[in-house]
Amino acid sequence: MSNTVSSPLYAVIDLGSNSFHMLVVRHIDGSVQTMAKIKRKVRLANGLDKNNQLSQEAMQRGWDCLSLFAERLQDIAADNIRIVGTAALRSATNVDVFVKKANQILGHPVEIISGEEEAATIYKGVAHTSGGLGHRLVVDIGGASTELIIGREFEAKALVSLSMGCVTWLDHYFHDRQLTRQNFDNAILAAKATLEPILQKYSELGWDVCVGASGTVQALQEIMLAQGMDEIITLAKLKRLQKQAMMASHLEELEIDGLTLERALVFPSGLSILIAIFESLNIESMTLAGGALREGLAYEMIGEMRQSDIRQRTISSVQHRYQVDTEYASQVADVAMQLLKQCGHQQWIPETQAAFLLQAAAELHEIGLSIDFKKGGEHGAYLLQNLDLPGFTRAQKHFLAELVRRYRDALSSLPEQHALSGQSSKRLLRLLRLSVLITHRRNTQIQPRFEIISQDDNLTLKMDTDWLADNPLTQAELDLEANRQTDIGWPLMITSL
Amino acid sequence: MSNTVSSPLYAVIDLGSNSFHMLVVRHIDGSVQTMAKIKRKVRLANGLDKNNQLSQEAMQRGWDCLSLFAERLQDIAADNIRIVGTAALRSATNVDVFVKKANQILGHPVEIISGEEEAATIYKGVAHTSGGLGHRLVVDIGGASTELIIGREFEAKALVSLSMGCVTWLDHYFHDRQLTRQNFDNAILAAKATLEPILQKYSELGWDVCVGASGTVQALQEIMLAQGMDEIITLAKLKRLQKQAMMASHLEELEIDGLTLERALVFPSGLSILIAIFESLNIESMTLAGGALREGLAYEMIGEMRQSDIRQRTISSVQHRYQVDTEYASQVADVAMQLLKQCGHQQWIPETQAAFLLQAAAELHEIGLSIDFKKGGEHGAYLLQNLDLPGFTRAQKHFLAELVRRYRDALSSLPEQHALSGQSSKRLLRLLRLSVLITHRRNTQIQPRFEIISQDDNLTLKMDTDWLADNPLTQAELDLEANRQTDIGWPLMITSL
Repeated sequence: MSNTVSSPLYAVIDLGSNSFHMLVVRHIDGSVQTMAKIKRKVRLANGLDKNNQLSQEAMQRGWDCLSLFAERLQDIAADNIRIVGTAALRSATNVDVFVKKANQILGHPVEIISGEEEAATIYKGVAHTSGGLGHRLVVDIGGASTELIIGREFEAKALVSLSMGCVTWLDHYFHDRQLTRQNFDNAILAAKATLEPILQKYSELGWDVCVGASGTVQALQEIMLAQGMDEIITLAKLKRLQKQAMMASHLEELEIDGLTLERALVFPSGLSILIAIFESLNIESMTLAGGALREGLAYEMIGEMRQSDIRQRTISSVQHRYQVDTEYASQVADVAMQLLKQCGHQQWIPETQAAFLLQAAAELHEIGLSIDFKKGGEHGAYLLQNLDLPGFTRAQKHFLAELVRRYRDALSSLPEQHALSGQSSKRLLRLLRLSVLITHRRNTQIQPRFEIISQDDNLTLKMDTDWLADNPLTQAELDLEANRQTDIGWPLMITSL
Repeated sequence: MSNTVSSPLYAVIDLGSNSFHMLVVRHIDGSVQTMAKIKRKVRLANGLDKNNQLSQEAMQRGWDCLSLFAERLQDIAADNIRIVGTAALRSATNVDVFVKKANQILGHPVEIISGEEEAATIYKGVAHTSGGLGHRLVVDIGGASTELIIGREFEAKALVSLSMGCVTWLDHYFHDRQLTRQNFDNAILAAKATLEPILQKYSELGWDVCVGASGTVQALQEIMLAQGMDEIITLAKLKRLQKQAMMASHLEELEIDGLTLERALVFPSGLSILIAIFESLNIESMTLAGGALREGLAYEMIGEMRQSDIRQRTISSVQHRYQVDTEYASQVADVAMQLLKQCGHQQWIPETQAAFLLQAAAELHEIGLSIDFKKGGEHGAYLLQNLDLPGFTRAQKHFLAELVRRYRDALSSLPEQHALSGQSSKRLLRLLRLSVLITHRRNTQIQPRFEIISQDDNLTLKMDTDWLADNPLTQAELDLEANRQTDIGWPLMITSL
C-alpha cells in the first residue's frame, strides 16, 4: 500500500466574454478530479465600445481577477497550465494591451484562440464527458460567440464559431431591459440570420443526439428540475419559458422558479438564441453536456483519457476507486443481461437505454460496501448521486442511485424519476435483485441454471432444484425474495426448471 | 490502472453459546472490509441439561444454522477459514456428537477452543480495532463465559475465562423471570464470587483504559445513545439502568429506551455481571471495543495488519482509499499542531485527546473531494460518519465528521457532541480552518511564517505581510475568515508579524 498520493495538478484558465474561470484538477485512477474551481464575473464583452476597444475599467476588472488566479498557478508545472482567451478578446482591437499585462500577472502566456479552435476544444470537452452513440451535434452559447459542432466519438466533422452570444445579444436586443414579444422576436430573428450560412451543411450532415453546453443550457436544466420536468430540452419547453419570462415586463423583475439571480440577466438573450437554433436546425431534443471548453483543455493536457466508450471508462474508474470486486460485478451483469433477454427486452422494456442502465447498475451495485457493509445499498446510492459520472445524464445518475439503493434486503417502490418510465424502472429493479441472488455464490463455475418467463408484470423464475437443494441459503433468499416482490404487488414465482 | 479487484475472502464462524455468527471479509488497501455477516440465535447454552448434555433439539438448531453457513464457505479457500466453538461446546459432554456432524455439514473442521485461547483471541480482536495507549483491561461477557484480559499493544499479560455468562446467569438467577432486587442481588453476588480468585492479580497489574466487548456492552451503548447520554459507561449509569429495569416487575415487560427486543432477554443478567465487574475491580469507566473474538480470528488469519498505532493505520488506509494528497495533509496537520502549541495547548484546550483529534481531522479533511469538489466537506462528513474507523470511538468519529464538514467555506457552530467540551471543539475547528488557509499554496517550500496568540476566545493571527502582498488570494481568504469567525462570535484578527 502506497501512502503518498500527490498526483500532479493541472490548471485551465478561460478568459470568457462574460466570466473568467479557473479550474484545477488532478488525474487519479482514471478520473479527472476537481481540486479547485474559481469563477469571477468580469463581463469583458460589456466593456467593448462601438470600435471594439476594451475600456480601461473592463481591463482592470480582468487584471484584478487574474492576480487572484496567479497565486494558485505558481505551484503548478508550466506544462500543466493552459490559459485561453475567447470571443471578447478575439474581437478587441486593443487586445495586446490586455494580454501584455495579463502575461506579467500570470507569469504564463495567455493564448487568444480562434473560433474554430474554441469549437474544436469544446467538442473534445463534450466527447470526454458525455455519453451517446452516433453523430453528435454540440451547441455552446457563450457570452460573445456561439459554437456549433457535429462530430462522432472524438472527431469533429464540422465546426463553426458564430458572432453571437448571450452578453452581446442582451446589449443589442434587450438594451431597454424590456421583456416584450417585440424584443424576443428581434433577438430570435437576428440569431436565425446569423445561423443561415451553416444551415444547409449541418442539415445534410445530420446527427443522432444533440447536447448543449454553457450557462444558458445549465440554467434551463436547473429551471426544469425546480419545476419538476424531465431533463430533455424541447422547443415546446423553451417556448413555455419564453412565455413565463414575458410575464415580467422588465428584466429586473424576471422571476422563474429555479432561475438563479446570477443567471437571470443573460437568460432571455440566451433563450432567444437557443430558440432560433432549435427552429432553424429542427432540433427535436437536447440534453446538457458534462463539460465543454475547460474540460476539453484539461482532458487534452492530461492525455491518456481517450476511450471511445465514455460510460465504460466511467464505470471502470468508479469500480477501481471504490474497490469493487470486478469479476463478480461482471457475473451479475451477465446474468442481468440474460434475464433481460429472456424477458423479451424491447417488448417488455421498450426504452433502448434500459440495457446499459441495467448493466451499469449491476457493475456498480457493490460500491457502497467500500463505506460499510451495513446499509451498503444506501451508501452506494449516496456515492452515485454525488459522484461526477461522465457519460451519464443527471436523471440517469439518480435512477442508478435508486436502483443500487434497493439491490438487496427489504424492497420498496422506486420514487418518480425521469430516466425511464415507472413500469420499466420497476422491471429493471426486479431483474437486478434476481441477478444478485442467482449469483449469490460469487463464482461463475457454480452458478445455477435458470430461466425466467415474463407475462406483463408476472415473473416466473425457473431454477435447477437439485442445485437449490445443495444451496439452502440461496433457496431461502429466493423464497424470501418471491414474498418481497409479490407483497408489493410484483408477482414472482420460483419454480423448478 | 488495474481493473480487476478480486481480493481473497476470509471467513470466520463463531459457534457461541447464545448465537452462531458468520463473518466474511476481505483485506483491501490496509483495511478489513466486511463482505457478509450472518447471525442466527441458536441458544446452545439453553439446551444444556444438568449433566451438561446438549439436547437433541439444540444440536439440531445448530446443524440447521450451519447448513446455511456451509453454502458460503464452499467458495473460500480452506486456509482462509476458521470455525471455533466456545463455552457451551466446551462444557457439553456430548460435544463429539455435535462436532462430528458439524464437520460433515461444513466440510471444514470445527475447533473447540479453550477459555484461555478465547481470551487471547478476544484481546487480539480488541487490540486490532480499538485505540488507546498504555495498559488495557478488556471485558467480554459471552453467553456462558466471561473473559477478562489485561494487555498492552498486541500482547496479553493476564487472561482468564470465567464460567459465567448472560445466558447461564439468566437461567440461574432470573429463572422466574422476575426483575426483583433479590434476583439482581443474587446475580451480582454470584458474579462477585466468581471474580474473587482473580481480583488481587488484576488489581496489582492495573490498567489505563478499559474496554468492553459483546452484546451486553453493545446494548448499553445503544441505550445510552437513545437516551442522549455520552458513550462512557460508568457504575452510576449501570445502577441507573438497573433501577429502570426493576420498574418492570417481569422480564417480558422490560422496556428501556434504546433496548431492542432481541437483546432484552439477556440484558438484566448481563447487566448484573457487568455491575459486579465494575464494583469488584473498581472500574471508573469503560468504552465499547471495535471488535472481539471474530475480529481477532480474522485479523490474525490475514496477518500484515499488525501496527501498534491502530489510529495511524486507520488514517493511512482511509487516506489511501479516498485518494488523499498525503503530502498536503501532513502539511496541514503540522501547521495545526504548531497553532495548538502556540495557543498553549493544555491551558487552552484541557482534554488530552484534543491533539490527536485535530491531527486526524487535518489528515482526513480532504477525503470528500474523492466524491465531488462541490460540498467536499459534506461528503467528507458522510464518509467519516459511516466508515468503520478502528481506533476511534463512536463519539470521536462523529466529532471528526462535524469538523471536516466545516473545514472550509461558510462557517456554522458545531452541534452538541460527546467527544470534547463545546468550547474545546469550537477551538479545534477554528485552528483546523486556519491551518487550511495558511497552507493554501499546498507547498511547504512557500508556506508563510505565522504566529497565533490566544486570549480565551480571542485569537490574533500574525502573518508575514510581505508574503501576503504577494499572495492576494490567501490574503482575501484570511480576511473573509476573520469576518466569518468574528461574525459568529469567535473574535479573530489578522495582523502583521
